[in-house]
Order: sequence, then C-alpha cells, then structure tokens
Amino acid sequence: MNMLARNTARKGTHYTLFESGALKDWINNSVDIPGLGKVPGKLFLKDAMGLTSTEISINAMPPGQGMPFHHTHRQNEEIYIFIHGQGQVQVDGEMFDVREGSVVKIAPKGERVWRNNGSEMLVYIVMQMREGSLQQWGTGDADVPQKPVVWPA
Amino acid sequence: MNMLARNTARKGTHYTLFESGALKDWINNSVDIPGLGKVPGKLFLKDAMGLTSTEISINAMPPGQGMPFHHTHRQNEEIYIFIHGQGQVQVDGEMFDVREGSVVKIAPKGERVWRNNGSEMLVYIVMQMREGSLQQWGTGDADVPQKPVVWPA
Repeated sequence: MNMLARNTARKGTHYTLFESGALKDWINNSVDIPGLGKVPGKLFLKDAMGLTSTEISINAMPPGQGMPFHHTHRQNEEIYIFIHGQGQVQVDGEMFDVREGSVVKIAPKGERVWRNNGSEMLVYIVMQMREGSLQQWGTGDADVPQKPVVWPA
Repeated sequence: MNMLARNTARKGTHYTLFESGALKDWINNSVDIPGLGKVPGKLFLKDAMGLTSTEISINAMPPGQGMPFHHTHRQNEEIYIFIHGQGQVQVDGEMFDVREGSVVKIAPKGERVWRNNGSEMLVYIVMQMREGSLQQWGTGDADVPQKPVVWPA
C-alpha cells in the first residue's frame, strides 16, 4: 500500500523518494511557466526533490497536441526518454519519429519542437544537465561497501 | 515503421536518436561490467549516444532478483525512475517500496541496494550526474527562437 500522498517527497539522510503516480495519471499534473501560463501534463521535480545536478520533468501530451514554439538552451544538454505513445521531433528543422523506447539527446543550440501524432497519450521524461559536466561515471565513480545485503523475509 | 535497427543511434548536428526498443524487450539487453561479468537486463547509453552530462542506464529486473551488493558514488548524484513493476530500495539500511512513478534521488554517499519483490518485471531508468553541477535550468536556461512551428500535413 502506498503510504505517501501523491506528489509528496519522503527524505532520508542521503535520499529523497517522490511518488509521481501512475503514468496514466501524469496528464493531471500541471505547472505554471512564466510567460506561458498553466501547462497541463507537466511536472518539474528539481525543487520537489532537491536535485542538484539535473532538472527533470515528467510529461503527458494528448493526441493531436504539440509544443507551440521552438526552444534552445544556453548551458544544458537535454535528454528525452519516450516511454509510451508515438510522436515526432524536429531539431533544426530535421524531423524524426519517436515511440516507446526512443531516447533523444539534444545539444544546447539545437532548435527543438515535438508533437504527439499518435492515437494514445505521449508519455515522456525530459532531463537537462550542464553540457560537459560529467567527469567520471559507472564503476569509475562507484565504491562497493563490504557489507552483506539483508532483506526482511 | 521503425527505420532504425534496435540499439543503433542516428546523429544530426545537434541531436542523437537512440532506439532502445519496447520496455518489455529491455530484459534482452546486457552489459559487461568489470569485476561483475555479464549483467542481463541493463544497457548504458552514454557511449552509444555521446552524452556529456550524464550516464544513463535502462533496466529490467525479473521478479525475485535484486542487486547482490551495496554501492556508493564519489562525485555523482543518482536518480532512479521506476516505470513498471514493484520493488524495494534500501539506502543506508532504510527501506522503502517503489512502483510505477516512484522517483528516487540518492546522494553520492548513500549506501544503496534494491530488489524486485513483485510479480512482474521491474523496469527502471538510472541516471548519474555530478552533484551540484546544475547552474541554471528551465526557462532560465532557455531561449525561444522567433520562427513558426511547421509540421507536414
């Protein structure tokens, strides 16, 4: 049973847990963006979770809808992970299809716009991180404490 | 129709598109990790996509399985986004449940381990980015080129 109210965070010393709800309910989120007003189907996680390395949004876009303007970034690389539905993306006027499992990296200067041209909700995650900021990764950034893994029965 | 072979990348001037395949097929991926050997159900995207700000893995873990060891990080904040199934996470020995829509941030020093204690595949995305690296975000990092959005009919 979910002990957390939706869209609330639980914090420990080294972690934050945020329950964004089932993917089918992401359309009920909304954010207020200065100059744009209320944007339905979008929720930013950085402030809610205290993220220091990325801004993440979780997104649901209904069939027939699309971004009404292009945008670029100044510092940040963006990554889009599509997890349901079908859509199209344009970067610098070049168009390609996206679907469940499509992952798109866009460099800061890429002029980007996207739409849902399918018949189901387009569900996707967008992340922005400072381009070139990663210095080490994977096992090269990891340590393994020598303690047993214990789970309750 | 998908014009791309699975797990291949298409590159433009400012973008890379990677088709990771349907979520139900992520279990067929695997990676070789030094000291661990072949890890099924995991695929790293950084090298395949030329990411410069994050290492991302896409993951599928079958019921009854779990990470066999704890790990920590040196520089990187980690974020786990669970998109299907049910599992449990421990950070510093504190346990909590996760499910579709659970997002977990773990600071570098958090000792973490997780398992699939549900009856379906646990499907999730893991990202690591350098802690404190984000300097600006959202509309504060964005520009809007004044050009019309045009889609083919």
